[in-house]
Amino acid sequence: MRATVFHAPGDVRVETVPDAAIAAPTDAVVRVEYACVCGSDLWFYRGVNVWEPGWRTGHEFLGVVDSVGAEVTTVRPGDRVIAPFSFSDGACEFCAKGVQTSCVNGGFWGGESNDGGQGEAVRVPFADGTLVVVPEAVSNDPALLRAAVPLTDVMSTGHHAAVSAGVRRGGTVAVVGDGAVGLCGVLAAARLGAERIFALGHHDDRLAIAKAFGATDLVTARGDEAVAAVLDATRGGADAVLECVGAQSSMDLAIGVARPGGRVGFVGVPAQVGSVDIRRMFSNNIGLHGGVAPARAYLPELLADVAAGRLDPSPVLDLTVDLDGVPAGYAAMDGRTATKVLVDLTR
Amino acid sequence: MRATVFHAPGDVRVETVPDAAIAAPTDAVVRVEYACVCGSDLWFYRGVNVWEPGWRTGHEFLGVVDSVGAEVTTVRPGDRVIAPFSFSDGACEFCAKGVQTSCVNGGFWGGESNDGGQGEAVRVPFADGTLVVVPEAVSNDPALLRAAVPLTDVMSTGHHAAVSAGVRRGGTVAVVGDGAVGLCGVLAAARLGAERIFALGHHDDRLAIAKAFGATDLVTARGDEAVAAVLDATRGGADAVLECVGAQSSMDLAIGVARPGGRVGFVGVPAQVGSVDIRRMFSNNIGLHGGVAPARAYLPELLADVAAGRLDPSPVLDLTVDLDGVPAGYAAMDGRTATKVLVDLTR
Repeated sequence: MRATVFHAPGDVRVETVPDAAIAAPTDAVVRVEYACVCGSDLWFYRGVNVWEPGWRTGHEFLGVVDSVGAEVTTVRPGDRVIAPFSFSDGACEFCAKGVQTSCVNGGFWGGESNDGGQGEAVRVPFADGTLVVVPEAVSNDPALLRAAVPLTDVMSTGHHAAVSAGVRRGGTVAVVGDGAVGLCGVLAAARLGAERIFALGHHDDRLAIAKAFGATDLVTARGDEAVAAVLDATRGGADAVLECVGAQSSMDLAIGVARPGGRVGFVGVPAQVGSVDIRRMFSNNIGLHGGVAPARAYLPELLADVAAGRLDPSPVLDLTVDLDGVPAGYAAMDGRTATKVLVDLTR
Repeated sequence: MRATVFHAPGDVRVETVPDAAIAAPTDAVVRVEYACVCGSDLWFYRGVNVWEPGWRTGHEFLGVVDSVGAEVTTVRPGDRVIAPFSFSDGACEFCAKGVQTSCVNGGFWGGESNDGGQGEAVRVPFADGTLVVVPEAVSNDPALLRAAVPLTDVMSTGHHAAVSAGVRRGGTVAVVGDGAVGLCGVLAAARLGAERIFALGHHDDRLAIAKAFGATDLVTARGDEAVAAVLDATRGGADAVLECVGAQSSMDLAIGVARPGGRVGFVGVPAQVGSVDIRRMFSNNIGLHGGVAPARAYLPELLADVAAGRLDPSPVLDLTVDLDGVPAGYAAMDGRTATKVLVDLTR
């Protein structure tokens, strides 16, 4: 089969690799229809995370089950399924608690040992614990199917930020970052009933999406000026703040605009966060919750809303490529000419 | 009247100061019967926090109302009352939310502008929002009255750590620190129904109190060795961790022993915390919650348990002095010959 392979920073290629195949009775093989390129893929693409040549890429995919192992019971060949960006056994303490990203037998797609999402097929370990069947209503409607794809990662991650920040109906929310996750965070906050949503970012086109997703206030200032703008407008800060970047400046901003007694939900991979303002957190009882999103926990709930036509994060997918176009997709994400790339393998 | 006054690091004195007096119609004056010396008083006593000569000391007191302003409705002269370690108006958004330490009109005892607890009397701003009447059953029983005194700060703070860490019935808890707050954290965790409680500290006498308060496992190792001990014994960490010190090593330890999906409740003044392990928090969805304890929010609930004979943190009070003995009390706390000093002004 063909799949995307990392060669060096700035160099990913679509190549022939061994076919995905059942290796354990709990496996399934999924033929990929849609995949994505993720902002977090840029960490290895830019050489910030050190990867080895030959590692496989992509952790977001939706497709059709091709074959299953003998012990798989919840999905069958022919089912259209969606995968979260990590696999999990569905049986351990952490899966039961909804922290599937900490599954004792779990792991992440791609890298050295696993198939990646940016290829023709994926061997899925623990298919029962990992995959979710896409509802018929979604499966039969191309627009809804496209709306479902971001649930593999960015929409679930934005939702995790909102849940971790304790977004409540009628509350005031600030979302730091206008990347795909930040935009999905705005959408998640609106879905949870937030009344006022500040979107903080620096890209007019992305902030326009934020507005369409429910942001009531757009803040393009940086640093102290941005903090002052939100503190002024809210008379003391936002009840819930979503940190969707993972940089030092964004973490400082997030804690800086949180209201006393409020919470910051952080989901930006903190690759470049050296410290948090623990004194401000202490004096004001500001909590910091979140982390890598247990997308598997949220998929059923979010899929139901997609099926009902109530949730559509697909506007974040502003560039579509085919499998051969994946390297160009990385370049577009790296150059910020695309917010998020959809890889359409059905074309 | 006589009260304790800061002169210089290592030098507090009991002196004659202006009598406490009603200054606003919402004030009360409380004649102090019992006060304490707090571990956090050592920050200025040791010169870590820079204080000015002449500032008044002490933020924990219980006593009898002497007089009230015209607008005070909930306490009357003669009532025995307990104060939390901060005052609050009881009327603002944050008081309503139970974050009285962020009250828009609130403040802390002592310092430049307010009476301190370590004196004969205290002018209490916002008496209705601040003071809580001690139940008759407690007021009439010297042992229960002594049990109530730590509710002014350390018991409420230990409880805040437990609540912030999300301690649940049947859960596993680790308490970092065997000072008065850590010991009260153990007691709070036991009260909330934790099944297994690890107490981490380095003082045999204090750990003996921890055991009496409900600790099931005592850990005297430090650093990585302590982390390994708790991770091993719990097969992956404690659901709830109480950080009751405020040092870099204690914060590292707290985050290090938290279970995936768990929470650290931090209440140690983070005067010496430079960083938190944000990557471990992210990978494992470990939350960090807490801060300066809104003792006022917890006093009614905790007092009711003292009245019922179900809660007695008084074993942390291992040295009693009279008002003239306050300087000696500071010296004992500073030299770690006392865990917590009770100042008995009734003698």
